[in-house]
Amino acid sequence: MPADKKRFEEGDDFAPRFDANGLITAVAQDAKTGEILMVAHMNQEALKQTIKTGLATYYSRSRKKLWKKGEQSGHIQKVERILIDCDQDCIVLKVSVDAGQCHVGYDSCFYRAVESNNPRKLRFIAQKSYDPNESYKK
Amino acid sequence: MPADKKRFEEGDDFAPRFDANGLITAVAQDAKTGEILMVAHMNQEALKQTIKTGLATYYSRSRKKLWKKGEQSGHIQKVERILIDCDQDCIVLKVSVDAGQCHVGYDSCFYRAVESNNPRKLRFIAQKSYDPNESYKK
Repeated sequence: MPADKKRFEEGDDFAPRFDANGLITAVAQDAKTGEILMVAHMNQEALKQTIKTGLATYYSRSRKKLWKKGEQSGHIQKVERILIDCDQDCIVLKVSVDAGQCHVGYDSCFYRAVESNNPRKLRFIAQKSYDPNESYKK
Repeated sequence: MPADKKRFEEGDDFAPRFDANGLITAVAQDAKTGEILMVAHMNQEALKQTIKTGLATYYSRSRKKLWKKGEQSGHIQKVERILIDCDQDCIVLKVSVDAGQCHVGYDSCFYRAVESNNPRKLRFIAQKSYDPNESYKK
């Protein structure tokens, strides 16, 4: 095994690998229920802010700026634990949240499942837990 | 809201959005325990194969080819459910697995956490569940 690979995989240095765009994938998981809430991206500054403040901060690729989760909606993510994967190119945030983490109005962004008998269709598996029109008009 | 955005977010058409490299991020989650096992990528063919066979198939960016999870190690992922997020650019696979999903020897690729009192260091939070040297020599 190359020394570099071994260092990433078996070592205890936190050495996150950002991609060609300076980003790393981050998965937010409800620390209590285990539900996967959303998948987003962080740049180095977003990760630094997340560690420093204890509140999940991402990098918005569409808005091209840092995005403290909940800054508009109020639905923040309090970071309980940060995990990194074997090759250090993906992060899992174990977070404490209130209801409604998805901007569409659901607790999780993953509110639809592929129909098993018709894979071109989706089935809604959750109910909206808040009204995004109310939260985002502030 | 633009019609296109509404269709992606509120509709029941499965219309996964692959990125500029033809890939979509896929998170594998243990259907029983909720543990996040790994994060990988799929191209259109990998997703098609996953749906068709019921076994998680990814696209390996390093090897530049389809990669049926477990083809070498034996540690396959039986897909129980496929979820898609609001803007349809990320997939969650709820999978049934045996022990040892990570090639390093752990159940999950996320076997290390960032130390809260020293964010440059990682703490191992899991024990290896199999010997990868045995599994991969076949």
